[in-house]
Amino acid sequence: MKTKDLTRIAISIDKKLMDRFDKSIEEKGYTNRSEAIRDLIRDHLVEREWEADQEVVGSISLVYNHHTRELTDSLNELQHHFFSSIISNLHVHLDEHNCMEVMVVRGKSSMVKKIADRLIGTKGVVHGKLTMATTGKGLV
Amino acid sequence: MKTKDLTRIAISIDKKLMDRFDKSIEEKGYTNRSEAIRDLIRDHLVEREWEADQEVVGSISLVYNHHTRELTDSLNELQHHFFSSIISNLHVHLDEHNCMEVMVVRGKSSMVKKIADRLIGTKGVVHGKLTMATTGKGLV
Amino acid sequence: MKTKDLTRIAISIDKKLMDRFDKSIEEKGYTNRSEAIRDLIRDHLVEREWEADQEVVGSISLVYNHHTRELTDSLNELQHHFFSSIISNLHVHLDEHNCMEVMVVRGKSSMVKKIADRLIGTKGVVHGKLTMATTGKGLV
Amino acid sequence: MKTKDLTRIAISIDKKLMDRFDKSIEEKGYTNRSEAIRDLIRDHLVEREWEADQEVVGSISLVYNHHTRELTDSLNELQHHFFSSIISNLHVHLDEHNCMEVMVVRGKSSMVKKIADRLIGTKGVVHGKLTMATTGKGLV
Repeated sequence: MKTKDLTRIAISIDKKLMDRFDKSIEEKGYTNRSEAIRDLIRDHLVEREWEADQEVVGSISLVYNHHTRELTDSLNELQHHFFSSIISNLHVHLDEHNCMEVMVVRGKSSMVKKIADRLIGTKGVVHGKLTMATTGKGLV
Repeated sequence: MKTKDLTRIAISIDKKLMDRFDKSIEEKGYTNRSEAIRDLIRDHLVEREWEADQEVVGSISLVYNHHTRELTDSLNELQHHFFSSIISNLHVHLDEHNCMEVMVVRGKSSMVKKIADRLIGTKGVVHGKLTMATTGKGLV
Repeated sequence: MKTKDLTRIAISIDKKLMDRFDKSIEEKGYTNRSEAIRDLIRDHLVEREWEADQEVVGSISLVYNHHTRELTDSLNELQHHFFSSIISNLHVHLDEHNCMEVMVVRGKSSMVKKIADRLIGTKGVVHGKLTMATTGKGLV
Repeated sequence: MKTKDLTRIAISIDKKLMDRFDKSIEEKGYTNRSEAIRDLIRDHLVEREWEADQEVVGSISLVYNHHTRELTDSLNELQHHFFSSIISNLHVHLDEHNCMEVMVVRGKSSMVKKIADRLIGTKGVVHGKLTMATTGKGLV
């Protein structure tokens, strides 16, 4: 395991504000306040990665009716066109008609957004969303 | 001025993560790391106020063409209907046709959302958005 | 008033989907389905204006304690530094301590974001948010 | 295949607005304007499903360092606790240390949010996000 180079910082904060935060993170299932603050910091940094067109990981979720003519072919073709960026796929059968497909995509944020636009815009895709995640580099 | 009851907390954090955060907040114009972390905590708490239907403050921004027939009347009527929640209005002339109006609204988050929906849905309103802000209570 | 060059388009849509949409927009206070669809189209276009760094209008909402030492001065100084972009201000007294200030800002989206970052990052600002609105040009 | 009950609606719209929309959706890869408008309508309805605590499908993306002590156990335990809602998982190795895991979760939106909170709040999870998707029912 990578040895982590830990540092310790102190922040001064109004007691009432701290109490409200402690209460909120307990409700969210955190057992550790430092971890909750580090999570806020990491969220902030992941947003910046996407703004600055750095290398990111995204997940693209699509819902579609697999009976739609030519849709599966179109999606396959698109995915192969971008195959070097699409790492992996998960396929779930939601009911007799609807499928959900989640793709994990890696690349510059502008490229990941472009791939998401193309997939979501494919005729027959009922709903699509891009989730902005991260390679995790420098965030541990 | 209200006397604040300050406390001091320590968090341990990976040095590389801290360095990236410091760089990012400097770019955003922060001069003080504690303040940046308190801002993340406050953002988190404001989101929770809106989720939990507590008393909030919101600002509703509308863009519309003031020549649209009956629009000014409709907006006025709606605003008077909700007058006890609408604190104040700002009106800006964007060009010969378009106006922007920003309203500061206070109340339970569900009520503020309802007022925003009604205003944004008024025929002739070109664009509308609700911004989730806060009364500031317990956040200083 | 500007003469509008109206066109008429037809879209085919599943009846159940249309019924759900009609129900939803009625709940939101729309009296007219075309208007609701035009609003979706305009929202889409305003998002694109912000992505493409075009000229936009934003509103920046700040909540702060006006007793915070030097805060009012800092905010004033910043606003004058960017005075050519800040069109107008609304100031609301939320309670004895807290103020809300809403600024309407116009410029390229990257500039408006920068101004928002600087104001929100000012020490003493309890909460700040940028709302992405529009000049309304080409959206009526 | 389910027989669809198509209807045809007409909307009147300013020509310039339509031209801007056509240009934008072409850039996003749409080949069909009706499909782009139906997508806006479906997005609207999916947002409402989440607001109204209806049955939804969400995908939860987690990035974590698989070397973190006890993390894999904690995540497994949580996932089994909620096993009846978690349909499927995708696991991707991002580098020697970091994994990405995407879970497809189905249930009332409040329950899906709760599961996401618990997973994202687990110590060692570097980044987590919930994506709001849909069962697709009534949206085709």
